[in-house]
Amino acid sequence: MCGVFALTQAEDAARLTFLGLFALQHRGQESAGITAVSPEGTLLTHKGNGLVSDVFASETLCELRGSAAIGHVRYSTAGGGLNANIQPLTARIARESVAIAHNGNIVNDEVLRNQLEDAGSILQGTADTEIILHLIARSTQQTFAKRFQEAVSAVRGALTCVVATRDSIYGYVDPLGYRPLVLGKLGDGWVLSSESCALDLVGASYVRDIVPGELIAIKLKTQELHSSLTAPDDALKNKNEHQGRITAYANSISAHKTTASADLEHYRSRCVFEHIYFGRPDSYLWGQSSTVKRAELGAALAREAPADADLVMAIPDSGIPIAMGYAQESGLPYQLGLIRNHYVGRTFIEPTQNVRNFRVRLKLNPVRQIVRGKRLVVVDDSIVRGTTSRRIIELLREAGAREVHMRIGSPQVRFPCFYGIDTPKRRELLAQSFTDEEMRAFLGADSLAFLREDTLVRVMDNGLAAATAAVACAPEQNRNWCTSCFSGKYQDEFAQRASRNEFTDAEF
Amino acid sequence: MCGVFALTQAEDAARLTFLGLFALQHRGQESAGITAVSPEGTLLTHKGNGLVSDVFASETLCELRGSAAIGHVRYSTAGGGLNANIQPLTARIARESVAIAHNGNIVNDEVLRNQLEDAGSILQGTADTEIILHLIARSTQQTFAKRFQEAVSAVRGALTCVVATRDSIYGYVDPLGYRPLVLGKLGDGWVLSSESCALDLVGASYVRDIVPGELIAIKLKTQELHSSLTAPDDALKNKNEHQGRITAYANSISAHKTTASADLEHYRSRCVFEHIYFGRPDSYLWGQSSTVKRAELGAALAREAPADADLVMAIPDSGIPIAMGYAQESGLPYQLGLIRNHYVGRTFIEPTQNVRNFRVRLKLNPVRQIVRGKRLVVVDDSIVRGTTSRRIIELLREAGAREVHMRIGSPQVRFPCFYGIDTPKRRELLAQSFTDEEMRAFLGADSLAFLREDTLVRVMDNGLAAATAAVACAPEQNRNWCTSCFSGKYQDEFAQRASRNEFTDAEF
Amino acid sequence: MCGVFALTQAEDAARLTFLGLFALQHRGQESAGITAVSPEGTLLTHKGNGLVSDVFASETLCELRGSAAIGHVRYSTAGGGLNANIQPLTARIARESVAIAHNGNIVNDEVLRNQLEDAGSILQGTADTEIILHLIARSTQQTFAKRFQEAVSAVRGALTCVVATRDSIYGYVDPLGYRPLVLGKLGDGWVLSSESCALDLVGASYVRDIVPGELIAIKLKTQELHSSLTAPDDALKNKNEHQGRITAYANSISAHKTTASADLEHYRSRCVFEHIYFGRPDSYLWGQSSTVKRAELGAALAREAPADADLVMAIPDSGIPIAMGYAQESGLPYQLGLIRNHYVGRTFIEPTQNVRNFRVRLKLNPVRQIVRGKRLVVVDDSIVRGTTSRRIIELLREAGAREVHMRIGSPQVRFPCFYGIDTPKRRELLAQSFTDEEMRAFLGADSLAFLREDTLVRVMDNGLAAATAAVACAPEQNRNWCTSCFSGKYQDEFAQRASRNEFTDAEF
Amino acid sequence: MCGVFALTQAEDAARLTFLGLFALQHRGQESAGITAVSPEGTLLTHKGNGLVSDVFASETLCELRGSAAIGHVRYSTAGGGLNANIQPLTARIARESVAIAHNGNIVNDEVLRNQLEDAGSILQGTADTEIILHLIARSTQQTFAKRFQEAVSAVRGALTCVVATRDSIYGYVDPLGYRPLVLGKLGDGWVLSSESCALDLVGASYVRDIVPGELIAIKLKTQELHSSLTAPDDALKNKNEHQGRITAYANSISAHKTTASADLEHYRSRCVFEHIYFGRPDSYLWGQSSTVKRAELGAALAREAPADADLVMAIPDSGIPIAMGYAQESGLPYQLGLIRNHYVGRTFIEPTQNVRNFRVRLKLNPVRQIVRGKRLVVVDDSIVRGTTSRRIIELLREAGAREVHMRIGSPQVRFPCFYGIDTPKRRELLAQSFTDEEMRAFLGADSLAFLREDTLVRVMDNGLAAATAAVACAPEQNRNWCTSCFSGKYQDEFAQRASRNEFTDAEF
Repeated sequence: MCGVFALTQAEDAARLTFLGLFALQHRGQESAGITAVSPEGTLLTHKGNGLVSDVFASETLCELRGSAAIGHVRYSTAGGGLNANIQPLTARIARESVAIAHNGNIVNDEVLRNQLEDAGSILQGTADTEIILHLIARSTQQTFAKRFQEAVSAVRGALTCVVATRDSIYGYVDPLGYRPLVLGKLGDGWVLSSESCALDLVGASYVRDIVPGELIAIKLKTQELHSSLTAPDDALKNKNEHQGRITAYANSISAHKTTASADLEHYRSRCVFEHIYFGRPDSYLWGQSSTVKRAELGAALAREAPADADLVMAIPDSGIPIAMGYAQESGLPYQLGLIRNHYVGRTFIEPTQNVRNFRVRLKLNPVRQIVRGKRLVVVDDSIVRGTTSRRIIELLREAGAREVHMRIGSPQVRFPCFYGIDTPKRRELLAQSFTDEEMRAFLGADSLAFLREDTLVRVMDNGLAAATAAVACAPEQNRNWCTSCFSGKYQDEFAQRASRNEFTDAEF
Repeated sequence: MCGVFALTQAEDAARLTFLGLFALQHRGQESAGITAVSPEGTLLTHKGNGLVSDVFASETLCELRGSAAIGHVRYSTAGGGLNANIQPLTARIARESVAIAHNGNIVNDEVLRNQLEDAGSILQGTADTEIILHLIARSTQQTFAKRFQEAVSAVRGALTCVVATRDSIYGYVDPLGYRPLVLGKLGDGWVLSSESCALDLVGASYVRDIVPGELIAIKLKTQELHSSLTAPDDALKNKNEHQGRITAYANSISAHKTTASADLEHYRSRCVFEHIYFGRPDSYLWGQSSTVKRAELGAALAREAPADADLVMAIPDSGIPIAMGYAQESGLPYQLGLIRNHYVGRTFIEPTQNVRNFRVRLKLNPVRQIVRGKRLVVVDDSIVRGTTSRRIIELLREAGAREVHMRIGSPQVRFPCFYGIDTPKRRELLAQSFTDEEMRAFLGADSLAFLREDTLVRVMDNGLAAATAAVACAPEQNRNWCTSCFSGKYQDEFAQRASRNEFTDAEF
Repeated sequence: MCGVFALTQAEDAARLTFLGLFALQHRGQESAGITAVSPEGTLLTHKGNGLVSDVFASETLCELRGSAAIGHVRYSTAGGGLNANIQPLTARIARESVAIAHNGNIVNDEVLRNQLEDAGSILQGTADTEIILHLIARSTQQTFAKRFQEAVSAVRGALTCVVATRDSIYGYVDPLGYRPLVLGKLGDGWVLSSESCALDLVGASYVRDIVPGELIAIKLKTQELHSSLTAPDDALKNKNEHQGRITAYANSISAHKTTASADLEHYRSRCVFEHIYFGRPDSYLWGQSSTVKRAELGAALAREAPADADLVMAIPDSGIPIAMGYAQESGLPYQLGLIRNHYVGRTFIEPTQNVRNFRVRLKLNPVRQIVRGKRLVVVDDSIVRGTTSRRIIELLREAGAREVHMRIGSPQVRFPCFYGIDTPKRRELLAQSFTDEEMRAFLGADSLAFLREDTLVRVMDNGLAAATAAVACAPEQNRNWCTSCFSGKYQDEFAQRASRNEFTDAEF
Repeated sequence: MCGVFALTQAEDAARLTFLGLFALQHRGQESAGITAVSPEGTLLTHKGNGLVSDVFASETLCELRGSAAIGHVRYSTAGGGLNANIQPLTARIARESVAIAHNGNIVNDEVLRNQLEDAGSILQGTADTEIILHLIARSTQQTFAKRFQEAVSAVRGALTCVVATRDSIYGYVDPLGYRPLVLGKLGDGWVLSSESCALDLVGASYVRDIVPGELIAIKLKTQELHSSLTAPDDALKNKNEHQGRITAYANSISAHKTTASADLEHYRSRCVFEHIYFGRPDSYLWGQSSTVKRAELGAALAREAPADADLVMAIPDSGIPIAMGYAQESGLPYQLGLIRNHYVGRTFIEPTQNVRNFRVRLKLNPVRQIVRGKRLVVVDDSIVRGTTSRRIIELLREAGAREVHMRIGSPQVRFPCFYGIDTPKRRELLAQSFTDEEMRAFLGADSLAFLREDTLVRVMDNGLAAATAAVACAPEQNRNWCTSCFSGKYQDEFAQRASRNEFTDAEF
C-alpha cells in the first residue's frame, strides 16, 4: 500500500503536497517524499524514512521551490526498508530529469529486472518502481509520453503512478485499474491523489476519477490537460471489438464529461479492500463514500447472518461503520464495548513477565460495565490470520461477555494479494486451511459468519437494495472488482504462477 | 493535566512503569520520566521531553534497574517547558535521595516559593512540585512520612502524587481529592495509577481508590502497606466534630474494606471533567466507567434538550459516547457524520494560501453522503472558546447540512480552573461574556443547549435515574464534585483571589 | 582543569565569549556553557556536553542576547559527567539570578556539602561549584559582593571564577592564586580570561593579571571597575603584620599600576604545571610566554643532564619547546623523530586482535629514516604513570633507535594534586614508588634524568640565567609556586589529610 | 583528494578498515564509508557524511561482518556534497555485487557520462566514480578483471582505486600513477592503502608500491595475489617498443622483487604535492619519508635562496620540516615564532564586529617574546591564493617582527590541477597573474623566494646531493613527477582543453 499525490500551478506546491500526503498518511507510514519542479525546471527532491511530519520541516518545504510537485507515502513490503527505495525515485533520462511515485505492485518484476541487468543497466534498490525508470530510459521513442507508454506496456500488475518532468506532470492508472487515482481542481491548477480526502484538506474540488489505462498529462506552462487511453492487451480478449467504444469513451473522458464508464465495466479490476479497509472512511473512492459503503455491507450482513444478541459492537476502527450498519438493520443497540487507544505512538517494548494478550491490550480495552453478562455481536471488516480476533474475544470473555457472535463484513480471505497489499503468505491465511466451523472454534466465538462474495459484489455495484437479489451473482458478472484474495482467480499468469508456487517454494 | 504511576515488587519495574505511562499518555504528551529504586537503594532517573515512546528506549529501561519505580507524564502549563521541570523531580534530602511525581496544581505556590528563597533555598525550575521537595527538606520532623505531611499541610490546591525513597513508595491525594489515584495489585506488589486503564495494560487488578487526604506508604522490603489520613484543615470547618468518623473511616480504608466514604462525602471536590473529557473512556474513575457516565449524561441531555432532527452525530472523539446516549434516549439514529483522522501525527505546517478552516480539516472531515440535506443533532462534551465548534458547524453546512442543533454534555464553562487543568483565561471563555443565545448566533447553530449543572451533579452521583428529579439540586448538596469552572465557587482563598485578579491584572 | 571567560560592553557578547572559550578549549573538552546578561537584566544560559563548537550553533548565540556574558569549558573530574554539573551554574538568590563559572577545586567540599544539606538546602549536582552558590544564598550580608566574600571565606582550595548578575560581572582569584586569570580591554568594555590567548583571538589588549585574593567587580552600566582584596586567613600566619602593605598594594592594583606584587610574593601558590603543560604555548601566564619558559627549562635541563647522543627529539606536543631548548643549549640537532597525528578526532574503537601499543600509535608514529641507527635524546614535559613513555620508547626501538636518553623538563611527580588537576591516585604515580633507576628500567631507556625542583623554581622565577646558581634554592624560598605534586607539601589541612588517606582508603 | 584502504583475511576486517581510514583522515574529512564482504559473499556497506569517527559506531562495525573490506575517506570537490556520491559506491553488475572506492579525478567524465546516458544508463550521482561502474556493467568481457580493464581503458586522468566483489579484492593505479597505493601484509592477508601510515596503525608490514598501470587481484579464498599491467596507450607514444621490458617488469612485480621501476620511469606522473603537502609527514610515499623529503627541499631552498636573518620559523604544520631543513643548512636557529592551535574543532562563527585577520588568528598566534625585534625567515610549503600568507605576515609585524623573509619550498603554482586536488581556478592563483616582485609586495614581505622547479625535481629524484647540479634539469628529463600545476604541461588533451577554457568560460 502506498499513496500518491501531485499538483500544479500552486504558489506553494511542496507545502500543499505535504498536506496531501498528510491526508494520505494512512496509506503508508514507512517513508515519505516530495519532488518539486523548480521554476528553472530542475527537480528538487526531499525524502526520508518516517511519517510525513517527521520527514519534512518547514524550511525543507521552502527549499522545494516550484509551482508543481509530486509526493509519495510508502508502506514497505518485505525486504524493502532500503533508503534507495524511498520514493519519488528520480533519474536523468535522455539528459532530462524524471521523478516517479508509484502505488501498486508489478508482478513480473523479476523477469524485467534480469533483462535490464543483463543489458548493462545498474539498479540501485529493490523497489519495482525503479524498473519503470529503466524501461523508460531504454525506450527509443521520441516523446516522454511515448517512452512512458512503451515502458508500462511491458509491465503486469497494479501500477498507479504520478510522474514529474521539467515541463509536465503525469498521472497513470494501469488498464485493469486496481488502485484509485482522482483528479481535482485547485484554482487554475490540477490535483491528482490516491484518495479524495486529500483534495478536501487542500481545498480542491473533485473533478473525476482517472480511468483504467488512462495516461493524463498536464503541461506546466499552460495547465492544458491531455488524456490518452490504453486498453489491456492480454488480460482481456475482446479489445478489438470494443475499440470504437473505447475511443468514444476516451473522448468523453478528455472532456471530463463522464466519470463512470458503464459500458466498459469489464475492463476493471478494482481492489475491493480499498473500500472495506484501506481507504480513509471520509474518502470517496470510485464515486462512493467508504463510510456509507461499509454501513451497507454491515446491513447486508445483518440480513444474511442475523444473531440473537443484546447488542452490536465493533472492533475499532475499521469495523465501526460496518457494525453501525449491522445494528441499524438488525434493530439491536450499537454500543462502545471496546475502546481503542488512539493516543499511543508505536512501542516495541513488552513486559518481561507474561501479560496475557499484551499487544492487543495496548490498543484495545473492553468496557466491563457494557460487556458484562451480555450476548454480543462483534463486527470486524475481515479475518486474515485470525490471531488478533481470537485475542479480542478472549478479552471480551474475561470482561464478562456471555456470548460472542462474530460477524465479518467480507468473505473469507483465502489467497494472497499480488497487487500491492501486504498480505501474509497463503499458508498463514486462516481461511485457506480452516472451514468456517474450524475458524469459529479457533476464534472461540459462539457463532461466526462472513459476507458472501456475490453479496459483496452486488452491494459494491448497486448498494444495499441489491444485496438480497434472489439469484446469486455469477462470478463472470463481476466486471468491476478484484476479488482474487477470496477466489484465487488472478488476472494474469504471473500472479497465478506465484500463487501456485507458494505451496512448493518456502522462500517465495 | 499530568499522569502518575508507581509500582513495587516487580521483576522489571521500569518496563512496567513505562507501559503504565504509555496507557496514561493522554494525560500529558509534553514530557515523561521514570525513577527506579535500584537494588542498592539508589534512585535512577531517566526523563525527557516528548512522548513516552520517544523518551525511553529498551536499553534505557534496562539501566533503570530495580523492583520498584515511579513515573510521570506531563502536560505543560504556560511557561513550563523547562528541562528542570520534567518529572519525577529528585533531590537529596537529609542525606537520602527522594523522587516525586505530581499531578495537580498548587494555588499558593508564589507565596511558598518566596518564603523558601528568602530563607536561602535555591530552586531550579518553575514547577510547583519543586516547592514540595524544599518544604520536605526544611521540615524538622524525624521520619520521612512526617516530613512529607508537614510539607503538604502548607500547600493549597490539587496535589495527587507518588514518591520514591530508598526503602518506600508513597502515594498521596490532597484532602479535597481533586484528582484520582487508584491502588492495584500485581503479584506480590502494589500499583498506584492516575487511572485504571494503566492497571489493565500491566495486568494488575483494581483494589480501591486512594481517598482524599490519604497518604499510603509501601515498604519495599515487606510490601507492607500503611495508610494515614489528613482531613482538610481550613477549607472545611467541621474537622473536629468528625474526628471519630474520620478515624473509623481510616481504619476501614487501611483494611481496604471500603472504597466509598459515603458519610464523609462533604470532604471531596472531584474534578468533574476527569469523567467528561480527560479520563480515557475505558478507565474507571472513582468506581465508574467514563464511557457509561458519558452515555448517561447524553441521555439526560436528550431528556432535557430534545431536538426535532433526522440524526444524531458526535464531534469525535470525546463527544461520541455522549452522542450515542443522546441517540438512544431520543430514538434518533446515530450516524458517522464527521470522521476524525487518527493517522495523523502533529504538524504545524499550514498552506500559504488560505484554506478555510484548515486546522479543523486536518482532524475532521464530514461525510457528505450522510450529512447532505439532513437536520443534525451535533453533540460535544463542552464548549470552551467555541472557535472550533463554530468551524465544524461551518464545515457541516458546506457539506449540505439543513439544520444544526448543537447539544453540549456539560454546563457553560464560565471560570478558569486553578486545580491542574490548562483552561484559557476567564475573558477567553465564550460562556463568560455571552448569553446562550449569543453563543448560538456565534456558533452559527440553529439551536444550542447545555446540560444543567444540577442535572450533571445528580447524574454523576446517582446515574441517569436521578437526572429528572422534580426538584433542582441545591449547590450545597454537591459534596462530591468540583464544579468551580461552571459556578466560580472555588474551595480556597488563593483560587478565589486569582479568579478576581484576572479582570484587573492583564499579566496574570 | 577548566577555563573561564567573561566580557562586558560588547555588541555581541555571547559570540565573543564563544570565541574566547574556543581559544580556551584545551583547558576542557567535556562541556561548555555561556550565560549572557540580557538587556532586560535576565540571565540567558546555554550549555551542554561536548566541544564549544558542538554545543553552540550560530542561532543559539543569537538567542543569548546582551552586551555582557560569562563562559566556561570543563574537563570533567571523576564521577562528574552529570548534566547538573555543566557550568555556568545558575540560581535565583535573594530573588535575583546569579551565574557562576569556576576553575579549580574546593578541598573542603564534603564538609560544606553536609553542612548545607543538614540545614535543608537541596543540591542538584556533585560539582563543588554549586556549594559556592548555596553559601551565597545562605549569607545574610546585604550586597552581593559581601555575600560572595562571606561565601568564599569558608572555602579552601583553588577557586578562580567569574560571576554574572543582572548588573555586574565579577572575577575572583583565591588568596593563594593557584590558577591564572587575566584582565583585558576591548573597546569600552573589559575581558576576563583564564589565559591571554583568548584575549588575542577576540582582539582585546592585555591589562594585567588578577592578583591572589582579589575580587574585581565591573558595573555593566558604567563599566566602572572596582577591586577588593582578601588575604589568606589561615594558610599563612603573618596576615596582620602585612596589612599596611596589602592595602597599598590593593590601591596600586585598582589603578592597574602594577602587575607583579614582588613584596607580597609569599602569598602565592601558582600551579607550575600551568606553564609546563596546561597553558597554550602561545599564552602569557603571570607575565611570561609559556613557549619561552619551556625552552628555558629545556636549556637548564641540558646543562644539568647532558647526553652523548646524535640528535634531540620531542614527544609532541608539549615536549617540543623543551626539546628545542635542550637542543640549542646542547648543540645537538633537533629533529622530527616522532610525528603526531593532529587530524584525528577521538575514537574508542580498537582492533579485536592485538596491535602492540595501539593507543600510542593512534597519535604518534616514528620517522624511521630519522631514527634508525641513532642515539636519541627524547624530551618530554613530565612523567605521571609512565606507561605512555614506555610504549613510545618501544616504538622508537622498533624503528631502529640505537640509544634512547629520556630527559624530563620537570621533577618527579610523586603526589596527587587537589587543586584542580586530574592526576591519578598516589599509588599510580610512577615516581611515588620507584627510584630513578627503577623508572629508567621500567621505561626501557638507556638513561633518564629529571629537572631538579630548585632549578625549576629558579628558572620559573628568574629565567635561564638563574638555573645554575651555585647554591640550591631552599624550599622556604619558593614563595610563588605550588610544587606540592613534587614535594607533597600542601598549603592546607584538607589536602594534607586527603593525601594521607590515600594509602588507607581505597575508595578515596 | 581522497584516501582508499582495503584488507583481506582479517578476523575484524571492518574494524581494521575503520582504523586504516582513521589514519588516512587527513586525505578527506567530508565523508567516509566501508564495504565488507560478508562470509556469505554479500557486500555490506555503511557510509555517511562526516569524520570516520562520526560515521561509524562500534555496533555498526560489528554489523559489517566479514574478513575482507574496502574503505574510503573523501574530500568533496565543488558541487559534490550529494549523498549519492559517498563512497564506496556499490552496484549489482552481471547479477553480482561490486563496490568501488576511488582516489583521483577522471578528466573525460563529461564525455563518458553523456555516452552512457544516451545508451539508456541511469546515473545516480555526480561523482565520476559511478561512471567506472557503468562502464564495467556495459562491458561484454567475461571475467570481472577483464570487464574492469576494458572500463578503465576508456578513462583519462588520475584513477587509483580499490574494488570488492563477492570473491576478490582489487587494487588499481592508472598508467601514469598520479596517486600512491601501497601493498602491505598483515598475518595471512593483504592490505592496500593510499599511504603507509595506515599500515603502521593496523600493524601491517610494508611490501611494495602498486606500480602505474597495475591491477592487483586478491582471491579471498586462497589469498593468492595476481598482478597484471597496462601501459598508457595514448599519453605516451612508445608503448610497443617497450613491451618486452614491460612484461619483464610485470613479472618481477608479481614476485614483489622490485618496488622501483627505474627503467620505465617515463611512464610516471606522480603528484609532487603528495610529498610536499598532502601525505602525512610520517608516511613513506613511493619509498621515501615525506618528513625527510621536505627537510631536503628546505635545505635546497636555503642554498638557493639564503637570507640575512636572526632566526628561521615555519608556518605550521606543513612548513615545519621544510623550515627545519632550511635552518640546519643555513645555520640560523629554528624557533617557534607561530603556535598553531590544534585543540580547535571547526567553527564557522565569526565576531560581528571586525577582528583583523580573525580566521588566521583562530589557528595561528605569534609568540611575541620570540618574534619582537627580529629578522625572520618564514618558511611555507607553497603559495596558492596568497591571502593567508599575507595575513600571517601582518600578524608577525604586529607582534614586532623587524624583517620578514618569505621562503617557499616549491615553485610558483600557476595552473589548476585536474588530477584530484581541489585547487582554485586559474585566475585566483596568485602566481598566475603576478610576478615574484608583485607577489612580494602583495604579501608585505621584505623578500620572497620560491624553490626552482628543476631543483625540486632533482631533489625529489635524488635527494639533497642533487640539488645544486651545475646544469638545470631540462623538462624532458622529468619522467617521474606531475608538475603541471607549475608548468601547465598536462599529460592529456582533456586537461589541456579544460585549462584553456578557464579563461573563456566563467562557469567552468
